[in-house]
Amino acid sequence: MPKISWKPGTMVYPLPAVMVSCGNEQTKHNIITIAWTGTICTDPAMCYISVRPERYSYNIIKKTGDFVINLTTKKLAFATDWCGVKSGKDFDKFKEMNLTASKAQKVSSPIIQESPINIECTVKEIKPLGTHDMFIAEVVAINADENFFNKENDVFDLSKAEPICYSHGKYYVLGDLIGKFGFSVEKKKK
Amino acid sequence: MPKISWKPGTMVYPLPAVMVSCGNEQTKHNIITIAWTGTICTDPAMCYISVRPERYSYNIIKKTGDFVINLTTKKLAFATDWCGVKSGKDFDKFKEMNLTASKAQKVSSPIIQESPINIECTVKEIKPLGTHDMFIAEVVAINADENFFNKENDVFDLSKAEPICYSHGKYYVLGDLIGKFGFSVEKKKK
Repeated sequence: MPKISWKPGTMVYPLPAVMVSCGNEQTKHNIITIAWTGTICTDPAMCYISVRPERYSYNIIKKTGDFVINLTTKKLAFATDWCGVKSGKDFDKFKEMNLTASKAQKVSSPIIQESPINIECTVKEIKPLGTHDMFIAEVVAINADENFFNKENDVFDLSKAEPICYSHGKYYVLGDLIGKFGFSVEKKKK
Repeated sequence: MPKISWKPGTMVYPLPAVMVSCGNEQTKHNIITIAWTGTICTDPAMCYISVRPERYSYNIIKKTGDFVINLTTKKLAFATDWCGVKSGKDFDKFKEMNLTASKAQKVSSPIIQESPINIECTVKEIKPLGTHDMFIAEVVAINADENFFNKENDVFDLSKAEPICYSHGKYYVLGDLIGKFGFSVEKKKK
């Protein structure tokens, strides 16, 4: 395994490619696709998105103080990519992509109805880092699509929604299941 | 798409499941598997890991001020899970998992030689959030496995390494390619 040395760069992959919805009555609604996102704390449940200040959504989120992380799927892949390339300055992205802005439970930003999981977030801090500012946020509510909930065993099966990820410039669906967390120490059933 | 309302929780998925290597001559080496990780800034290249203060690696990273994010693969999936379940208090994880601790370029922590990408990070800030503290870090060097580098077109093909991701409690390999970033606006070739 000989190694090539690279300059510093962004190489943590695979990442989620989420559609962040934002805006309320005072501003316009918008959607921005973001891969610089993740969970930063389990309890309280906290996550972040990093956004360039020049992006149209930046000032909207700064003003309203909340946003929604909408998980994306194979079915939403085209809209996911398109909302990452186009600007809300020029387009009503909900309209162009035939997506539905529904009322969130706890925040002023809308949820994207077509997404299997909507994570409602309240901004706690905006941290300038360089090209991007990190919006550190607390999760205040989650909406889950009932269709992926198995009532028989009380389990939400996200894999049924066909989530996608972003890895080194490309979008992929998830492939074969390797195992559950803890599979390496599980006692084999006889 | 009727929605079920959930309490706040950690639902940003799919995530990377990285092995973080840490420690130097003054401390012991260790490996901790982490899904609460991601990129937070493009330039300067910055990323984070969130770690519970009670984890064995927490004090090591706090003391040395650096760590390495090692991307994981199908081949490394067993070690990835095992290093997330077991503690460095009880095991020499490099030895138990037959992994090689090699010298990094810029940091005191070792890289995991068997990983396709090693991201060397210097801690800039430790931010307590609740159950987890966020280690905000700058990327100072990257090592890439030459085997996944295509010399003909000068492209590193991470997908050849069979990267894995973590989604709602389960590990998956990546599946079918959907498209490159920007595919939704690409002009079709005639």
